[in-house]
Amino acid sequence: MIATLRALEPHQLPDFVSRLKADVLKRVVEKIPHLESSMAVAELTTALHYVLNTPDDVLVWDVGHQGYIHKAITGRLEQLSTQRKKGGISGFLKREESPFDFFGAGHASTSLSALTGACLADAAAGRERNRVAVIGDGSLTGGQAFEALNHLGSLNTNALVVINDNDGSIDPTVGALHKRGSYKTFVESLGWSYTFVSDGHDVVELVRVLSTMLGAKGLQVLHLKTKRPDLSPPKSYTPGTTFQWWASEAMRPLMEANKDIQVLSPAMFASSGFGPLRDEYPDRFFDTGINEPHTVTTAAAIAAAGGKPWVHVYSTFLQRAIDAVLHDVALQQLPVVFLVDRAGIVGADGPTHHGVFDLGMLMDVPGATVWNPRNGAELQAMLAQAARIQGELNGPLFLRYPKAKTDVEPQEVFASMRWMVEHGSNTLLVSTGALSDFATDGAWDHLHLGQVKPLPEGFSEAVRRYENIIVLEEGSGEGGLFGAVARLAAEEDAVVRLVQRKIGNGFVDHGERDELLREIGLIP
Amino acid sequence: MIATLRALEPHQLPDFVSRLKADVLKRVVEKIPHLESSMAVAELTTALHYVLNTPDDVLVWDVGHQGYIHKAITGRLEQLSTQRKKGGISGFLKREESPFDFFGAGHASTSLSALTGACLADAAAGRERNRVAVIGDGSLTGGQAFEALNHLGSLNTNALVVINDNDGSIDPTVGALHKRGSYKTFVESLGWSYTFVSDGHDVVELVRVLSTMLGAKGLQVLHLKTKRPDLSPPKSYTPGTTFQWWASEAMRPLMEANKDIQVLSPAMFASSGFGPLRDEYPDRFFDTGINEPHTVTTAAAIAAAGGKPWVHVYSTFLQRAIDAVLHDVALQQLPVVFLVDRAGIVGADGPTHHGVFDLGMLMDVPGATVWNPRNGAELQAMLAQAARIQGELNGPLFLRYPKAKTDVEPQEVFASMRWMVEHGSNTLLVSTGALSDFATDGAWDHLHLGQVKPLPEGFSEAVRRYENIIVLEEGSGEGGLFGAVARLAAEEDAVVRLVQRKIGNGFVDHGERDELLREIGLIP
Repeated sequence: MIATLRALEPHQLPDFVSRLKADVLKRVVEKIPHLESSMAVAELTTALHYVLNTPDDVLVWDVGHQGYIHKAITGRLEQLSTQRKKGGISGFLKREESPFDFFGAGHASTSLSALTGACLADAAAGRERNRVAVIGDGSLTGGQAFEALNHLGSLNTNALVVINDNDGSIDPTVGALHKRGSYKTFVESLGWSYTFVSDGHDVVELVRVLSTMLGAKGLQVLHLKTKRPDLSPPKSYTPGTTFQWWASEAMRPLMEANKDIQVLSPAMFASSGFGPLRDEYPDRFFDTGINEPHTVTTAAAIAAAGGKPWVHVYSTFLQRAIDAVLHDVALQQLPVVFLVDRAGIVGADGPTHHGVFDLGMLMDVPGATVWNPRNGAELQAMLAQAARIQGELNGPLFLRYPKAKTDVEPQEVFASMRWMVEHGSNTLLVSTGALSDFATDGAWDHLHLGQVKPLPEGFSEAVRRYENIIVLEEGSGEGGLFGAVARLAAEEDAVVRLVQRKIGNGFVDHGERDELLREIGLIP
Repeated sequence: MIATLRALEPHQLPDFVSRLKADVLKRVVEKIPHLESSMAVAELTTALHYVLNTPDDVLVWDVGHQGYIHKAITGRLEQLSTQRKKGGISGFLKREESPFDFFGAGHASTSLSALTGACLADAAAGRERNRVAVIGDGSLTGGQAFEALNHLGSLNTNALVVINDNDGSIDPTVGALHKRGSYKTFVESLGWSYTFVSDGHDVVELVRVLSTMLGAKGLQVLHLKTKRPDLSPPKSYTPGTTFQWWASEAMRPLMEANKDIQVLSPAMFASSGFGPLRDEYPDRFFDTGINEPHTVTTAAAIAAAGGKPWVHVYSTFLQRAIDAVLHDVALQQLPVVFLVDRAGIVGADGPTHHGVFDLGMLMDVPGATVWNPRNGAELQAMLAQAARIQGELNGPLFLRYPKAKTDVEPQEVFASMRWMVEHGSNTLLVSTGALSDFATDGAWDHLHLGQVKPLPEGFSEAVRRYENIIVLEEGSGEGGLFGAVARLAAEEDAVVRLVQRKIGNGFVDHGERDELLREIGLIP
């Protein structure tokens, strides 16, 4: 398709874009909201591939939510119907999928650093070519984008940054830069030339402006207004079907009873399930922008000032703030409650989004408390317990729950561990989190740990009674719960046979959550 | 002292500052370069404590390198002589040391997030007071500072940010913002009012300006020029005494033989030992600013473009980029070589700087290679090996070395493991890194793992021969090398008694490196 595109005259481009949009829509009509982001840049994507000599020229897309048109133009139109399904193509850009995907992503705000790397590598190789990155107004709230603008802005090189300003990422964009619309003075202060195009859907104009800017060389920012079509049905959770729904339900009385709780989120309230509750308490829910380190340090300081900060954050994005967790929260022994959403396999979003690394990291945070509820009822008990004990905490508390359906069960009280089966086997299955409800088949004794750090009182005594211990957890890496049990066994001088059942040492591709868990062997 | 200060008339302040500087200098004359940073803000610190009602008002210092005068004014003048020594006060601000230390630090660029948290907590509590943060021009290159300026800039609150512009942090400040001196347009684009004072050493003028600005309310930036006195003798490494010296020596022929190697550092070349080499290859060493995520993603993109990126970074600061390691380098299988400096206990800088968490994190990075040399000779062999195999790598390689002295030994060749003692004991000591050279006392068989990930070929066979295995490593947490050995034992179905010797699950305070290692029980 790209050869066809490049053979066209500029005046034929609007027609090309219209047909392309229809072709894409047909294949991925159910893939909203990513589809909306992609449709909004149909003209931009077409113009870029028209003026650039991709893949020899460098084109980087921030996050990649908006990559459907790019994929269609670069030979993946038919495969779009397989997108985000197991064995199909990815929902994001991916290097191994196409030479046109110079740099993959899934987390925001990395594209300008990728652009910097391309500039440096080209300088070393004595190579000149066009280098372009497209970043949204939401991603620009992430500090790494500033780091790159500031660094690259001091180098003697050629690069073009397109700011795709559509007033939002997944949530509406926050922050002074967007509120004031002061992109011009902002980027100029960092050494970049600024051009504005108010209609980002005029493909002919885009071709003209991009050609002029690339010809002018140097450091260029094109600020573009685009509109996302509204293809989404309003987001709804069927009552009681997900951990997210239970979390939000359980928070309502806690917000009422604990007037000093303030909830922060790095731009993910919309998909957290907390949207309605935020609307009820607009002065106590804060969307900080896509900036996890800032969010976590801010929460630490709220605690330092005597407040009650709670942070909602996806497991995969918490990775970006693990230093803030260690340096600002744990070291200073500040009581911050973290709602770690999307902990475990997430499904269709794939390896950039699976929440499988935080457990290992959090188990290593001195003074932390880590809870993994097995279902919505336990989640609810844990939320209430967190509110109850926050004042006594000397460090962070992490309440980790997956993107998964969960049964509605009677309200229960908090317990750090719970015997699921106990009939005198010489083998103990120790599990944690949502896997616990899948794990009981009665063959062995079975203990569910709602709390994995510190290990519950009474756990070491339980461990000593068994010859074999199977440790089941939805996490990756050498440590985590398995590491903690192995250390305990070593400390107790217990000679016990340990069996590790967790996510192996590799990245997990995309697919349905249960499908992937089954393939890894964590559920039957 | 603070009561004395506040009882003075403004015209008496210059004399107060002069005497204070002399008093501080007397007690910490050897504590350069932190002393230089502190001396540069003597007038600012005095003015701040004069106009603010600390500790009821909020005063946050970024990093805390410049906190000596603050400590003296707030009752810690005499204790300054114990600073950075075991049992003495910290080199940085520390909450538990004084109520005047509202928020501690040691890593850069967190102060404005702390200021944000104070604003939010005060709003919730209906509390009005002055809130001030002081941040250097170097720390402003860190994206988290932008995140906070942008977020706080959109809030309806009162806060004052002092930019202490002294042209550098540990290295001279890089980036477009500082090069262009465009702080005014930059902060104004983010919603802040801007005031400039060219002489940051005029304490009377500072008192006048600060009082005016605090009275004006709203979001205020005071941009201040200060000069650091030059108290430092030129930095020198005695040839062959440290890992840092060996690293730099070993890099020289590699830079010559591999013309495509480019070395990046997030603003730490000066203390890396690579200073002289950077001067020899100014086009191939890049100080990116204090921005670890940007540095790592940039390196990933250099690799994506076919280059040979190396990143020098302190272990403790690599924590800030662990998501970039996972998401940009490892997931995309890009060959980036990391020189992880200050891996292990660092000594006087204390808990914000000990490099004890990265090992656990890096062991969990899919597809990573992790090396811990036991001395300078092995470091040299590993550096050469890294250059040799970089083209074949499908992921990051981490070469971790401590801030420690090391013996000069004959050149050696790379080996992933090395028998130190093998005389048929039923107990095996497995160690890695610099601890290996302390660990051999002949009581047990002893195997040094230069490579801990993946575990060397032949290691599992060795493990099967022993009844007891002691795992010794300079790292914290549940995973790391111990976790890997425990997993291997589980996979091999080996019933073996494991003993864990590592840093326990707590933060380690400051002191001399050997003193701390001995206390923890990792060296005899």
